[in-house]
Amino acid sequence: MPPRDDKDRANLLQGTLDLLILRTLVLGPRHGQGIARLIQQQSEDVFLVDHGSLYLALQRLEERSWVSAKWGASENNRKARFYTLTPTGRAQLTDKISEWNRIAGAIARILGAEKSEA
Amino acid sequence: MPPRDDKDRANLLQGTLDLLILRTLVLGPRHGQGIARLIQQQSEDVFLVDHGSLYLALQRLEERSWVSAKWGASENNRKARFYTLTPTGRAQLTDKISEWNRIAGAIARILGAEKSEA
Repeated sequence: MPPRDDKDRANLLQGTLDLLILRTLVLGPRHGQGIARLIQQQSEDVFLVDHGSLYLALQRLEERSWVSAKWGASENNRKARFYTLTPTGRAQLTDKISEWNRIAGAIARILGAEKSEA
Repeated sequence: MPPRDDKDRANLLQGTLDLLILRTLVLGPRHGQGIARLIQQQSEDVFLVDHGSLYLALQRLEERSWVSAKWGASENNRKARFYTLTPTGRAQLTDKISEWNRIAGAIARILGAEKSEA
């Protein structure tokens, strides 16, 4: 087995983490840990979001008013910050989904290119 | 129109540039400019690879022996460095394609998740 190129994956994830967070919040308000858990579950353990990256991203999204946040109680009654998608965030999500589809489509075209095109 | 988030795209591209270069070289040896042109064409102008990133990536791939390079003459008879995929590079390409499919599949699952899963 070759060593896994974690740096490549981290770069890729950084570029799409905002997309995944915004998409997760369409399902309803959630605290940070809940967002990370849902991304991990729905990706079938492909994305393990580390807490540092997650909270940096959430902070950035809050500063841009793409999410709003307020304090509440988590399922085990701990104080936690709950994040909600704003209308601006929802519009951004639509743009980011288009952009992702554009990029994924372009990569698919390159990966599928025929040898005879050389 | 919202401002395009070029930084996000750059991060994403950095993580997949090696993949695109290796995949392009399956079609035969090429000089750097030829690689950039083919990536741009096959992606239908989604990926405009800047020369700095391209040559850094090619240098890295050569150091890892995933590509080999030798001097030759370009179509307009200029001296140019031609890159060839090595057997190690070909094996890496296979791994990177699997990894890309894993990531793209995971993102597709998240984007396609039903609201009712909340």
